[in-house]
Parts: sequence; structure tokens; C-alpha cells
Amino acid sequence: MVKKTKRSNRWVNKNKKQRYAGIHLIAEFWSGRIIENPKEIKKILIRAVKKAKNIPLEVAIHKFSPQGITGVVLLSESHIAIHSWPELNYTAIDIFTCGEKAYPYQALEYFKKQFKPKKVEIKEIKRGVL
Amino acid sequence: MVKKTKRSNRWVNKNKKQRYAGIHLIAEFWSGRIIENPKEIKKILIRAVKKAKNIPLEVAIHKFSPQGITGVVLLSESHIAIHSWPELNYTAIDIFTCGEKAYPYQALEYFKKQFKPKKVEIKEIKRGVL
Repeated sequence: MVKKTKRSNRWVNKNKKQRYAGIHLIAEFWSGRIIENPKEIKKILIRAVKKAKNIPLEVAIHKFSPQGITGVVLLSESHIAIHSWPELNYTAIDIFTCGEKAYPYQALEYFKKQFKPKKVEIKEIKRGVL
Repeated sequence: MVKKTKRSNRWVNKNKKQRYAGIHLIAEFWSGRIIENPKEIKKILIRAVKKAKNIPLEVAIHKFSPQGITGVVLLSESHIAIHSWPELNYTAIDIFTCGEKAYPYQALEYFKKQFKPKKVEIKEIKRGVL
């Protein structure tokens, strides 16, 4: 499916010292709640996008057999993705948001509330550093 | 859209010393070829998946106005994403593949051949390290 969407060019301009496209949070959730319902994953993804003050464009969800789920939401400011392996108590979350008006950490906090992981590992990566 | 797909549980078992879900390559391409045609981006994504020896499930593409494109392909082993900002000569590429039989670097080499970036920055992140 191909759609055309207007996108503003809002590069992050941190204290006028460093310019970059956006923040990519790489989150590893361990031993959290197992959410296997595609409708619930979709709802969580859309709400996370709103927490990040981003604009959702399209959501794609795949439920695996016998377990596990993948959900990706395209944003006008990049993407948010969830991949879960319940058999290993592991959920991989990517929050890649662009522009000065994005709040990826608010999306992360929302995911934590939903998945309630016992252990969380986070990496913050600045993307497109000029 | 929700689909159910069978997924094998193939965790990477590196020299029987370190077990992890997969490799996530974070690639920053600078001053490469500008590819704004959604059909071409889709073709490139699918071919990259094949280079990585992964299985594509679904492709979502968004063309932005006045420029820029986003393409994400869901895999039975995670995802590959492209986001481009031609106005800044920047293309962000994510190659997140899981399992022992995935070849993310082969997908990366394929992307390099397609985009011909003058400058490339790569980060390799192991996801789901047990």
C-alpha cells in the first residue's frame, strides 16, 4: 500500500549545538505481561504514538504461531515497533521519533505501564547527527 | 491488518557462549542516491530481506510531500525499515533480524549498492541478550 503524506521538516536543534533527525530508543523488556491480542497491541501502539506527540500513519500487526506478536506503526516521524517472544519472556521495543516536538520517553513510560517488565534495558541513539 | 504466521524459535547461540534474539544494524547513509519511487523502495526492501535470508510478511510504504519516503517490511524475524530525508541527504536504515540463519550484513551491503552513500555510519546492537 502506498500513501502520500505531508511531512514537516523539523530537525532537532539541541541548544543550537547539535542537530539531528531524532531519537531512537532501543528497549529490551524482560518478564513483562504477555500481550498476544492483536487488537490490544494495535491500541497500545496508537496510544504510545500519541504519548510521543507523533502522528500515526499505518499499523501492521502479525500474530505468530504458536506464540509471539509483531506490531509496527509508521509515523510521519519514523516508526515504533514491538516484537515479542513470550517463550523467552522477552519483548523488543523500538521507538524512533523525529523532530523537536517528539517525546519518545513518554511513549517508553507508557509501554512500561502496559507491559510491566521486571527488567528493562534502554539504549538511546541519536539518528542523523549532522 | 492482522495475520497469523508460523515462526520458528531460532535463538542465536554464538559459540555456545552468548545467546541473543538477533542483530539490529543501525545504519546512517549520507549523500546517497535519492530514491523516491515507492515501487522501487518496495523492490529494494524485498530484495534486502532475501539477502538477509529472512521471510517478508508485509510491506508498508509512505511517500511524503514534498519529499522523503518511509518503507518498513515486517519479517518473520523482526523488521527492516528505511526513512529518507532527501533535503538533508540522509537515509536512516534499520536491519533487525533474528535467529542464527539471518544475514543482516548481506542486506546492508545490498542497501549500500542501491543507495551508494558517500558516507556510512553503522552501529551493531545485539537484541535480547540472555
